[in-house]
Amino acid sequence: MASAFSFELEAVDSGTSARAGRWSTPHGKVETPAFMPVGTLGTVKGLLPEQLRLVGVQMVLANTYHLALRPGSELVRDLGGLHRFMDWDGPILTDSGGFQVFSLAQLRQLDDEKAVFRSHIDGSLLELSPERAIRIQEDLGADCIMCLDECAPADDSPERLRTAVDRTTLWAQRCRDAQKRTDQALFGIVQGGTDEALRIRSAAGLVPLNFPGYAVGGLSVGEPPSDMYRTLDFTVPQLPDDRPRYLMGVGTPTDLIEAVSRGIDLFDCVMPTRHGRNAMAFTSTGAIRLRNAIHARDETPLDSECCCTACRRYSRAYLRHLFIAGEMLGPILLSLHNTAFYQKLVRELRIAVNSGTVTEFRANHLAQWNRQT
Amino acid sequence: MASAFSFELEAVDSGTSARAGRWSTPHGKVETPAFMPVGTLGTVKGLLPEQLRLVGVQMVLANTYHLALRPGSELVRDLGGLHRFMDWDGPILTDSGGFQVFSLAQLRQLDDEKAVFRSHIDGSLLELSPERAIRIQEDLGADCIMCLDECAPADDSPERLRTAVDRTTLWAQRCRDAQKRTDQALFGIVQGGTDEALRIRSAAGLVPLNFPGYAVGGLSVGEPPSDMYRTLDFTVPQLPDDRPRYLMGVGTPTDLIEAVSRGIDLFDCVMPTRHGRNAMAFTSTGAIRLRNAIHARDETPLDSECCCTACRRYSRAYLRHLFIAGEMLGPILLSLHNTAFYQKLVRELRIAVNSGTVTEFRANHLAQWNRQT
Repeated sequence: MASAFSFELEAVDSGTSARAGRWSTPHGKVETPAFMPVGTLGTVKGLLPEQLRLVGVQMVLANTYHLALRPGSELVRDLGGLHRFMDWDGPILTDSGGFQVFSLAQLRQLDDEKAVFRSHIDGSLLELSPERAIRIQEDLGADCIMCLDECAPADDSPERLRTAVDRTTLWAQRCRDAQKRTDQALFGIVQGGTDEALRIRSAAGLVPLNFPGYAVGGLSVGEPPSDMYRTLDFTVPQLPDDRPRYLMGVGTPTDLIEAVSRGIDLFDCVMPTRHGRNAMAFTSTGAIRLRNAIHARDETPLDSECCCTACRRYSRAYLRHLFIAGEMLGPILLSLHNTAFYQKLVRELRIAVNSGTVTEFRANHLAQWNRQT
Repeated sequence: MASAFSFELEAVDSGTSARAGRWSTPHGKVETPAFMPVGTLGTVKGLLPEQLRLVGVQMVLANTYHLALRPGSELVRDLGGLHRFMDWDGPILTDSGGFQVFSLAQLRQLDDEKAVFRSHIDGSLLELSPERAIRIQEDLGADCIMCLDECAPADDSPERLRTAVDRTTLWAQRCRDAQKRTDQALFGIVQGGTDEALRIRSAAGLVPLNFPGYAVGGLSVGEPPSDMYRTLDFTVPQLPDDRPRYLMGVGTPTDLIEAVSRGIDLFDCVMPTRHGRNAMAFTSTGAIRLRNAIHARDETPLDSECCCTACRRYSRAYLRHLFIAGEMLGPILLSLHNTAFYQKLVRELRIAVNSGTVTEFRANHLAQWNRQT
């Protein structure tokens, strides 16, 4: 099945577990560590594909749950698949829809067979089983697809977390069996909250299924960052070295550096675009809130180290004006900048891995970046 | 004063009064007929300057009233002027602010000296005199600026319309006297509603002031299109042949064709971008409302005759999905398309003038375009 895919490990950092890799997919290579902007509904909010390309985006994520509701996965399939629909010819990853069923929809019934839930849009009754999650993702046609997992709340009892882990393993098996297309890499998702034994149990159930890549789910759901990093400390070593490792829904620039240092290769997060829409910019000297009056007459660029359109051509004063006046171009330019910032960060991390300097990179940069949550 | 400007008449259509011209400004040439997208607050909503360039935009309009309120004309001046602030290096035109004072603000007092009004944003008390209108526009630094005029409601009594005409003439004189910068073309604005005698009176007052161009104001304010066309029939011949003629705030594609046929050279209107944000597309075969369910599975482009990004790369189904899902990219792509459509229209009109075929162009095209109001 994985013939269209290969993952080459190019380098491992000398002082940390950070890796640099090259992942081949049917829609092109992804140099890792890599960050995927989130295109929930088949569009990274406010940005055109060529704008993503220009700032170095290699791969984007789209959300199965949202696309299944609107416009429907069969419509996307009939129109030639998600790549063509959204005009993105690079690699795409879709999640399984499970996370939104457990967080966004109103869950009506959950058992080993399936989840039954109500749409957050119109309240209609829908269901998601492992087989259905695969079917939808095959309709969408992403390069990388995800097993349906149970995302139990982080503060659930150990018994319930364990039930979720075992169900996730069971569902992973069913997803693998349901997969028909051979041009999509199906990843297993390790669950287990922040509990070492459960994470090990989850990985032990999934690794024998021999997925072409593994995701770490159920993190960045409200726990302190130190708990997330600790969880990665004992989870990542359970995953095979020769497959890409994807930390789902993470995170801040600090999170990316800490997770790369622990051996994670792939990330997605709404943070750069969502914060951008809310006038918050990530910069090489920390976070900037553009609505602040201090920027009203500031002629300097957002980030003098950034070469995105927002930084090369506009002043902070203009960008602030756009937000104060409620102009669309503000969210557009800040989403673009923050996306550029994240891409620059993972590129620099990759360089640091190749030169064996991740420890120094982390030390040099963490101090000057404000934590964004 | 007009040394930085020249207007060359290249051709006049054989069957109509349509003209093709070339207008030189300090920020480049404008081939006329020309249409200016509206960048009210220093940004054409949702579009970057390079996107405007790519679809052929030569000149943009910005609104003095809005910019004077936010971020303030002195701030724009201190940051290097409007061209630099908004990163548009082509010609810019600013209106005088009068139209918004009479339509948007709460007018408190109006006499020959000035208008006193309350800001529509925070209710603060402000005033606009001819001298102040020029001062603000000199701070903004557009290539073409407008005299302050009194925009009386179209249904005002003949006496009040006449008072507005005479006040507009008085203010035009004061604007001319107040102008200090020599690199901005100051246009007079002909008022007078749809009344022939008043329009002639207005032109007769303004033409001796020898402005480098003339605008026709007070139209497209609710009167039937036929009244507007009739008003142009008797107004345009009052204006000098050798200066650009600008029809303010107009209009639909049909309006543009009809007004060009009557000798108008320059237009601005929010219609392409505002309709674009509201999922309405102008196309070569008529208007399309993308929210309509008929487009849900339509693989065809919005307009097969258009080469904008929206038409070259996306299906109607995708564009509709963006609007149904509330995604920013929908308004962005449709604003871009409609802007491209308007630019193509004025380019084609220019070609028709040069080949003496405006009558045929009008006949061929009017039938298939739906009227948008």
